[in-house]
Amino acid sequence: MVGWRRRGCVKIAGLLSVVAAGFAGLCPTQAQDPLPSWNEGPAKQSIVEFVNKTTTAGSPDFILPADRIATFDQDGTLWVEHPVYPQLVYCLARVPEVVKAKPELAEVEPFKTALTGDIEAIAKLPIKDLEKLLMATLSGMSVEEFASETAKWLAAARDGRWKRPYTDLTYQPMQEVLQYLRSNGFKTYIVTGGGQDFVRAYSDRVYGIPPEQVVGTAGSTTFGYDREGKPFLTKEPRLLLDDNFAGKPEGIYLMIGRRPAAAFGNSTGDQQMLEYTKAGKGLRLAMLVLHDDPEREYAYGPALGLPDSRIGTFTQTLYDEAKKDGWTVISMKDDWKRIFAFENK
Amino acid sequence: MVGWRRRGCVKIAGLLSVVAAGFAGLCPTQAQDPLPSWNEGPAKQSIVEFVNKTTTAGSPDFILPADRIATFDQDGTLWVEHPVYPQLVYCLARVPEVVKAKPELAEVEPFKTALTGDIEAIAKLPIKDLEKLLMATLSGMSVEEFASETAKWLAAARDGRWKRPYTDLTYQPMQEVLQYLRSNGFKTYIVTGGGQDFVRAYSDRVYGIPPEQVVGTAGSTTFGYDREGKPFLTKEPRLLLDDNFAGKPEGIYLMIGRRPAAAFGNSTGDQQMLEYTKAGKGLRLAMLVLHDDPEREYAYGPALGLPDSRIGTFTQTLYDEAKKDGWTVISMKDDWKRIFAFENK
Repeated sequence: MVGWRRRGCVKIAGLLSVVAAGFAGLCPTQAQDPLPSWNEGPAKQSIVEFVNKTTTAGSPDFILPADRIATFDQDGTLWVEHPVYPQLVYCLARVPEVVKAKPELAEVEPFKTALTGDIEAIAKLPIKDLEKLLMATLSGMSVEEFASETAKWLAAARDGRWKRPYTDLTYQPMQEVLQYLRSNGFKTYIVTGGGQDFVRAYSDRVYGIPPEQVVGTAGSTTFGYDREGKPFLTKEPRLLLDDNFAGKPEGIYLMIGRRPAAAFGNSTGDQQMLEYTKAGKGLRLAMLVLHDDPEREYAYGPALGLPDSRIGTFTQTLYDEAKKDGWTVISMKDDWKRIFAFENK
Repeated sequence: MVGWRRRGCVKIAGLLSVVAAGFAGLCPTQAQDPLPSWNEGPAKQSIVEFVNKTTTAGSPDFILPADRIATFDQDGTLWVEHPVYPQLVYCLARVPEVVKAKPELAEVEPFKTALTGDIEAIAKLPIKDLEKLLMATLSGMSVEEFASETAKWLAAARDGRWKRPYTDLTYQPMQEVLQYLRSNGFKTYIVTGGGQDFVRAYSDRVYGIPPEQVVGTAGSTTFGYDREGKPFLTKEPRLLLDDNFAGKPEGIYLMIGRRPAAAFGNSTGDQQMLEYTKAGKGLRLAMLVLHDDPEREYAYGPALGLPDSRIGTFTQTLYDEAKKDGWTVISMKDDWKRIFAFENK
């Protein structure tokens, strides 16, 4: 008897929701702009067209919801990377602690230079030396210690120009793209050359992207037990995935196992990810942020005739490939109405 | 004007849905059993209690939806692993092709034994030799070729006992647990010692688990270009993640970045995953499937006083740890009403 009453009752509730949904369908279409921080132009248009074409049932470019994967580089694509990657600032801040634990390092390069705090001298260190600094400062602790250290630093650190937490320096137009894609059924991923664990410490809060949707340069961990027999994971100075250049599509395959439908980057480190994305069947979106706004942010890269600072290299070759293969170049100067959420609109 | 009309209209539609939802809330509670293939008993009870306690708002054990991660071993936990892992059967089927490409391998171990097809002799090969077979048969092709080869094999292959596709041999009670957890907001993952790419080829169709939620033993890939300049990824014979034993929590950290709230396994290969899961704060669920049903499936493992066949080892030590640390042991014989979906109920 309860079974029948329940079935009848559920049927009535179901009918009521159908009426509600039908009524909502009759309301005039909402004309709200999903990308209010973008100027009208080819960049904005390519995003909106891509979303419309791939999510409208019956469209020849329709993509099944499960295959709606969008990947975003972080440094220079989602937040400011100049004059130096925030994560490098974090690593340098940790050097004194590392040297305190091993005092003999104080007289050895690259620690000696790192301890001076002279950012220009540090920026000139060979890549191998920078990697040594990263390994030394990002390993040797439990994964929980690392996450809490990172959170503490992020809360206290301020960038040199805007005097704000680095996590305030995300690009509002890109935040809108993340949100717009998600509200159209896309799963948004960060695919960064930066440290996977570092970005995972704030990705959810800052971008609405949970840790499992962050692919980055990753070291191995080792499982072990503490004195009470409680298991824990220790971060090791051993590289598992170098998530840059060819490492980006390799990392995407390892961690996601599908080819993205859309990919966003800003440098040669993103080239292979965009190529891999565009090589898929059907409509794909590939976009590159060009830093050409010295007033509101920075202007850099050989494609603008400016010197290569080793950070976010946008070469003429990359620019030519973008034009040839139908990638869209986003001009920060022309395409973005505002850069940061904290600016006046 | 349209703006006002839209707002009013949306408000009415919203009110109607609230009425519909309220009406549904008044209907008598549905008494449908989410785990119909489970007998009443402590195993079923521990699952239902865990879900109720962690998903009821206001419960002291409540887990935020974002943190509802559940991980499942595959071989022996979600599908049949005896007398031999299906993936090993797949690899052996590929040996002739590998030898055809490199005829000199025909006279070299382990290929010589593998070519005989004598499964008992093959099962006795040293682990190193088995790994050599896996590496040789699972690499050297593009990732797309691998996926299509796997799909083709799965469609054609039949197991020796039930004469059915291996993908029919998933445990119906565990399929219900996957579904039950998902309908309560849990994200379900496979964390397997088997090949990540192999399992990803069918996980969505068979378990409703998309490729990005499969963590497994993984080799590296190499990004390159074909003659037309089209980029592709080649599977390499280089191990990146050995997702067994301590490798399971390490793999979970690498690929998911969060500690599971619930974990399911069936052998010593799952021990560290369950320990890592239980060591988290708050209520956690750890379960082990015990293969004690020689009639309907198989009975094996030292914990039952049976010889260790190297496949799905359930030791007395594991059994003791489970009892001591509050893990639940699932008896296939006593706890499962039926094993497979194709059985009569």
